[in-house]
Amino acid sequence: MTRACLLTIGDELVDGRVEDSNSSWLAKRLTDLGIVVTAHLSQGDGLEEILSALDYAVSRADLILVTGGLGPTEDDRTREALARWAGRELVEDPGAWASIQKYFAMRGVTLADSNRRQALLPDGATLLPNRAGTAPGFRLCEEIDGGAEADDARTCEVFVMPGVPSEMRQMFEDGVLPRIQERGVELVQRSLAFGGVSEARLGQLFAEHLEEGGDLRVGMCAEFGLIRVTARAYGPGGEQRIDALFEELRQEGQAWYLGEGEAGLEEFIVRELERRGMTLTLAESCTAGLVASRLGQVPGLSHVLHRAYVTYANEVKHQVLGVPESLLEIEGAVSEACARAMALGVRRVAGADLAGAVTGIAGPEGGTEEKPVGLVYLAVASRDRIWCVERQYGHPGRQIVRNRAATDLLLLLWKALEGVGGESLDSSPAS
Amino acid sequence: MTRACLLTIGDELVDGRVEDSNSSWLAKRLTDLGIVVTAHLSQGDGLEEILSALDYAVSRADLILVTGGLGPTEDDRTREALARWAGRELVEDPGAWASIQKYFAMRGVTLADSNRRQALLPDGATLLPNRAGTAPGFRLCEEIDGGAEADDARTCEVFVMPGVPSEMRQMFEDGVLPRIQERGVELVQRSLAFGGVSEARLGQLFAEHLEEGGDLRVGMCAEFGLIRVTARAYGPGGEQRIDALFEELRQEGQAWYLGEGEAGLEEFIVRELERRGMTLTLAESCTAGLVASRLGQVPGLSHVLHRAYVTYANEVKHQVLGVPESLLEIEGAVSEACARAMALGVRRVAGADLAGAVTGIAGPEGGTEEKPVGLVYLAVASRDRIWCVERQYGHPGRQIVRNRAATDLLLLLWKALEGVGGESLDSSPAS
Repeated sequence: MTRACLLTIGDELVDGRVEDSNSSWLAKRLTDLGIVVTAHLSQGDGLEEILSALDYAVSRADLILVTGGLGPTEDDRTREALARWAGRELVEDPGAWASIQKYFAMRGVTLADSNRRQALLPDGATLLPNRAGTAPGFRLCEEIDGGAEADDARTCEVFVMPGVPSEMRQMFEDGVLPRIQERGVELVQRSLAFGGVSEARLGQLFAEHLEEGGDLRVGMCAEFGLIRVTARAYGPGGEQRIDALFEELRQEGQAWYLGEGEAGLEEFIVRELERRGMTLTLAESCTAGLVASRLGQVPGLSHVLHRAYVTYANEVKHQVLGVPESLLEIEGAVSEACARAMALGVRRVAGADLAGAVTGIAGPEGGTEEKPVGLVYLAVASRDRIWCVERQYGHPGRQIVRNRAATDLLLLLWKALEGVGGESLDSSPAS
Repeated sequence: MTRACLLTIGDELVDGRVEDSNSSWLAKRLTDLGIVVTAHLSQGDGLEEILSALDYAVSRADLILVTGGLGPTEDDRTREALARWAGRELVEDPGAWASIQKYFAMRGVTLADSNRRQALLPDGATLLPNRAGTAPGFRLCEEIDGGAEADDARTCEVFVMPGVPSEMRQMFEDGVLPRIQERGVELVQRSLAFGGVSEARLGQLFAEHLEEGGDLRVGMCAEFGLIRVTARAYGPGGEQRIDALFEELRQEGQAWYLGEGEAGLEEFIVRELERRGMTLTLAESCTAGLVASRLGQVPGLSHVLHRAYVTYANEVKHQVLGVPESLLEIEGAVSEACARAMALGVRRVAGADLAGAVTGIAGPEGGTEEKPVGLVYLAVASRDRIWCVERQYGHPGRQIVRNRAATDLLLLLWKALEGVGGESLDSSPAS
């Protein structure tokens, strides 16, 4: 098993001016190659800071990927830090200097003296050419003393790349990837999605599979209304071992199973509508188009959703959806009765097979004692059934209420499609 | 000077499945408060890993902000790690347990036994309530031994928050910010927003103000259709120095000036509609509710937008909006003529003062040689004028096309409201 640590250098990362996109890109790339990433560390441009970050990294990795701090100016100290850390001199690399000169000549730009600094590499380092910019990268191999245990002696490989994402990615593919592939790890990774269940509950159900370590690792994370369970099998027979595991997980979590793969809840719904040749429509009040817009992420939505409505005002609910005025007066627009009438109404108006509706109080204003901020009613109507739920999200903020309401309506649509009655769902015949 | 270190915990961060957005958000927030952020560290869920990360952090910070690993399952070990690191027992916090029970009851979800684990805090820690989710946070104060130098003894404050960004942000504002503000840095920070101009062009215009250093610092960043120029004044007289600077910036950038403050483009539009007592409606095709949904972030939208439509199908554009069938046949649904007819039609149907419409090809399928993926038409109709623009976004991916189209329609709505003719806008009398 190869362990890697990522080290991104730059004051602009540490103080939040620039978001560090290199770490997650590299982490994903390495993980997919079967490397175990153990830590990411972002550190400012100071020499001492880089040195202590390298010490931290080397204690938990056989592979260190460093990005940033290779620019031409005085405040770029990554070259110097690496040389000092490895106990070597900085020497000019002729190949590096030639390629910097060529790069400037090609673009017709005058070289600054400071650019020559960029051709300095720690003695014995291997140049990694930069096809997309001026700063060359390099590779160092360090023998790590195992201390008292001679068996712990090992080699740590350090790759140093520029911080500019496009240059870094190019250099990774050209110069880092081939070296890593030589290490030859066999890895299969697949995932299942579950919905309408809390992470805690599913975690309890799958507890025995979630234990750490081994050559079949299972992880779980919540994203936009679904719980994603990811399995990684190292070594031979990975597909078969994951097949067997997923068979168990699917059975144990059957009530909430959505499907295999990386699709989101929105895509599961659109694909299921397509598969059944069904159409969908929506009437949204407090979410104001968020449900439609999230479904709109899925290519081909236009084939299953021909129209949808944002109906904030009471007279629009009445005129467009046919919600009775008396219902709006007596029950109010934020009520189970109104959500049901909206779903039934929009289904009829749009001539769709399935309709979803949401009405509630996103806040921060507009709540009353009886109907507080965060109260939301969701309804789904099919040809012959209605599903309706009440939700009370409290005061986590307007955007969170809207996002949760949208997610819960998507989950309700999924349950309606599947015909599966969830624990907190109330389904009754359509009136 | 207060130094802070950020520690984000989670296997899903370290292996690249999930991007760590917490670090840059917190770094920016702390930097704005005058705190010097010295490092970000992302570490997996293992106990030993968290412990060594804490040791690394405490050696370079007086303030440690930890996020993640507070979930209910076995693989969430942040609570345990903090207790062990501080040499304390984990004890159940009655307030934390009560709020977890309340949260589940409100949402009508059954509690899992494992959720009770979330109420465990290190002995002596102060609870940070979670208004947006189940996992409570906490604050610990640790006396740090200065080693041989007794003068180096100091207090390190550790804040532990959930990893879910929305929950973390809420908890930061509620429970962390007030404590940090007590440390008392004198800093005034304000910002201006500009729209419909590139960051490069505005940067050139404001170049002399953007130089680094000094006690008045100006930064610029692009976000969701606007360019935000932020000024930070350290020391006395900050308000006056920023007043003088903003007077200049407003004059130099007058053509693109939106307003002062942290509001987004959506809020500028909704507030302007309210100020003028005007109503808005929308007809969206390829954006499928995204424009309505983005406006829906602004409290009070329901007073200015009573209804809006998603009109994907041609027959819906005809039946609901009155777009002539002959126009759809001859010009096609993705055409300037159709966008204009949609804006005029939806304005009439909704009886609104202002109407926006968008039609285009978000991709990845559906393009032709004549009308490629990424081609979008936007239109805005007022009582007596129409504004219409064609955009060709190319193939950056479906979500990016949809986001850009939504942003450009919002900018067009703003220009229509202001009556300002932008450089690439074409305005003509309404037919």
